[in-house]
Amino acid sequence: MQVQVISSVNEASSARFQHKTAIVIDVLRASSTIVSAMAAGAACIIPAETVMEARALQRSGDLLCGERFCRKIAGFDLGNSPLEYTEARVAGKRVVLTTTNGTRAIVKALRADYVLTAALLNASACAKASLELRRDIVMLCAGSHDEFSIEDGLCAGLLLDCLRSLSSLPVEIDDFGMAMLALYRNRRDSVVDTVLGGATGRRLLKLGMRKDIEACSELDRFDTVPRLSGDGLIRG
Amino acid sequence: MQVQVISSVNEASSARFQHKTAIVIDVLRASSTIVSAMAAGAACIIPAETVMEARALQRSGDLLCGERFCRKIAGFDLGNSPLEYTEARVAGKRVVLTTTNGTRAIVKALRADYVLTAALLNASACAKASLELRRDIVMLCAGSHDEFSIEDGLCAGLLLDCLRSLSSLPVEIDDFGMAMLALYRNRRDSVVDTVLGGATGRRLLKLGMRKDIEACSELDRFDTVPRLSGDGLIRG
Repeated sequence: MQVQVISSVNEASSARFQHKTAIVIDVLRASSTIVSAMAAGAACIIPAETVMEARALQRSGDLLCGERFCRKIAGFDLGNSPLEYTEARVAGKRVVLTTTNGTRAIVKALRADYVLTAALLNASACAKASLELRRDIVMLCAGSHDEFSIEDGLCAGLLLDCLRSLSSLPVEIDDFGMAMLALYRNRRDSVVDTVLGGATGRRLLKLGMRKDIEACSELDRFDTVPRLSGDGLIRG
Repeated sequence: MQVQVISSVNEASSARFQHKTAIVIDVLRASSTIVSAMAAGAACIIPAETVMEARALQRSGDLLCGERFCRKIAGFDLGNSPLEYTEARVAGKRVVLTTTNGTRAIVKALRADYVLTAALLNASACAKASLELRRDIVMLCAGSHDEFSIEDGLCAGLLLDCLRSLSSLPVEIDDFGMAMLALYRNRRDSVVDTVLGGATGRRLLKLGMRKDIEACSELDRFDTVPRLSGDGLIRG
């Protein structure tokens, strides 16, 4: 089985996803929010690229959610903090979500046979689920401002570490993936510090969002694997 | 001091080099060849982007050197193996060199205030020299076929490790650089294996070039730091 890792949305051409399983990673914070929302019982998450598209997709009873410049969009129900997505708020609901990078990354990966969403919160479960789909894998690190983000690379490395230990077949990893695996193995005992030290971590910290960063840095808290089906992410 | 690391030539826009010191890294094999040639006494290395340009730049007495598809170009004096660049062949000579990625990377970095060439062979000396130039630093990993190459990332990580221990000022490293530092720290005891395991290493191995790979994987063999001055690289 071959596994490739793409360093940022900017680097992703749709063609690279064909006949593959795509794993979209945006640790701070879209994929952490998606995983948390689903773990809290959301019926499905509808990713939208723009605020206007999100409004158009909202049906009666749906939660309208998302961020721009790291803040909740005016008039929306929820922002992009995983901590907001409690069972009381989201259980049984459809969540329409637009974020700066994460939702864009999901749209980029649409040509894949399967699209899964991974965060540090569900990495082991996601690695396991991706093996069951029996395709080569492309991991897309969403990044931020068209640049690589270290927390996404760390999550890719954790996924690769899981794939290597779980797979019965040899797992061939490209050069960038091998670097991410080494990054994870070097920093596995300092995950929160690594996430806090990245550019996005520092930006969120300045905005007073330390609790969000810590919530997003927890490893394997959930077994939930959001998987794209039609226009929405459902429990995989 | 700020340090940024660019993952491949493809990712490099000229604007990112302005007012900076550029360190160009192409471990397999252009920068290893350049460092070896200079350590063996070459007077200067003239990088050329194309075979035609290389021929046009050759003056009487110059060595015409370079590779396409990893092989010496027909009619050229030397290829792109650092082992060919012995004192007997190159001492006192101008070397006109064209390679697939490395020379292209040097041309990309031309807008920088200073352009240095780094390989694993001279990383510590290059880190030291770059500090003396008192600019922010941009490292350009040349990569291969427009993709990141792990051996270039490993070299960037070693350079960063040296900068962190040598600099009297705090060294601020971007997310990609932090990942490369962790890659180096995780793989510092298996440098040859890491280089052999990358896509370019495997390609060269298939072509019977194991000795080249081993020669390029040696850490800090030389103190020579090739530095661009006008059209050529000279002893920095």
